Amino acid sequence: MKQNIYDNNKFFEKYQEIRARENNYNNLLEQPNFFTQIPTLKNKVVFDIGCGMGDFAAYCISQGAKHVTGIDISSNMIANAKKRHIHEGLTFMQVAFEDVTVPNGSIDFVSSSLAFHYIADFQLLIKKISTALCEGGMLLFSIEHPIVTANKGKENWITNHEGNLLHFAVDNYQDEGLRTQNWLVENVMMYHRTMSTILNTLIESGLQIEKIIEPIPTKEAVCNLPSLHREFRRPSFLIIRAKKHKSKLA
Amino acid sequence: MKQNIYDNNKFFEKYQEIRARENNYNNLLEQPNFFTQIPTLKNKVVFDIGCGMGDFAAYCISQGAKHVTGIDISSNMIANAKKRHIHEGLTFMQVAFEDVTVPNGSIDFVSSSLAFHYIADFQLLIKKISTALCEGGMLLFSIEHPIVTANKGKENWITNHEGNLLHFAVDNYQDEGLRTQNWLVENVMMYHRTMSTILNTLIESGLQIEKIIEPIPTKEAVCNLPSLHREFRRPSFLIIRAKKHKSKLA
Repeated sequence: MKQNIYDNNKFFEKYQEIRARENNYNNLLEQPNFFTQIPTLKNKVVFDIGCGMGDFAAYCISQGAKHVTGIDISSNMIANAKKRHIHEGLTFMQVAFEDVTVPNGSIDFVSSSLAFHYIADFQLLIKKISTALCEGGMLLFSIEHPIVTANKGKENWITNHEGNLLHFAVDNYQDEGLRTQNWLVENVMMYHRTMSTILNTLIESGLQIEKIIEPIPTKEAVCNLPSLHREFRRPSFLIIRAKKHKSKLA
Repeated sequence: MKQNIYDNNKFFEKYQEIRARENNYNNLLEQPNFFTQIPTLKNKVVFDIGCGMGDFAAYCISQGAKHVTGIDISSNMIANAKKRHIHEGLTFMQVAFEDVTVPNGSIDFVSSSLAFHYIADFQLLIKKISTALCEGGMLLFSIEHPIVTANKGKENWITNHEGNLLHFAVDNYQDEGLRTQNWLVENVMMYHRTMSTILNTLIESGLQIEKIIEPIPTKEAVCNLPSLHREFRRPSFLIIRAKKHKSKLA
């Protein structure tokens, strides 16, 4: 099932409001950690899945990438990306990754920031990425952490009568599949997968795990956005870097 | 700090009672999953860390292993192991792994069942294991899952007024280090480490992650020990198989 929540106008409007603020979870927590793992981009062919408004694709071009394809299922996003970033090395397409044809071994670097939890068939996704990557090519992606997506309840921070946070509720961990959350609008769909499913899928698809990050905010970030202190109590995000085996070594 | 809780006589007595029951978490959940990942043992040199009463070491011999060294910090355990299992290919020693000298590259297979969460310096432990392993050698270990060890509270299953389980409480996830739990006796010490610390430590020590298991009980196991149904709600254990890089490929 291909969800296209970013073409829900109410959702997209609220999303743009959040992203316009400098102090959000992406800017203060996910992106700084994601950026520590980006490979050298000079002359690389890059594929960005869930490219949104195209800022990361444009960044890759600015770092010398030969060509960057950014795809997103949302026409709102792709329209914005095309308006914001024009460069001969940049291609933006409104399409789901499942429906794209990418020549085998043609990509040096596949990136994806906070998009894979919207994709139903993770095995197919990772297999397709692994096939598209050249030998030694890299996949870098961030997703919502399994600790956060596990519970089917809508509110996972448990508070006492005074409204103080007691702990974070985990439940239904082994029951993978669809979850609905209230984020910006009601019933946003995403998919819960266990840590072992995520990692074993990468390994079984010929990708070697190189780095795992469960981001921790800096002190400065917590000053700017105090709710980030909760990240010490449980991680919101998971960032994984993996490398395509060279076939002789596989 | 080297904890030697198994030489606490009250603890050891209760531990023996539990292990004497067929229906315990080790027999029904951890061991069946651990065993799925054991390599071919024929002519292998094996090192078992936290060998307990030596049953796994003896199993390796029965499968054709050339030599098995079992170490445990507990004199109770080693005394039992030596009594239960006598074979020219078996050596049992009461010693902490930190204090053992193992020739570089001399071991084919390092195993450890539910012992690493008692060891304070995980980096040192894994580095030492990696150095002891031959090229292509394997490490297989199980530990308490980070979801379970995170919270500093003593009771992590949250219940309602009727005593029904509501959810599992996670907290203090990023605050690694000592935890005390009440298991069999009060204040058993163990160490909480995040998933990313565990996996990155292996990777940085030259070990390639091959398989992650968060064990799920079989229906039959849940019939035999109904409390195992909680394993669907959050995992108790984490099992990891990793392989020493061949140096040419590293």
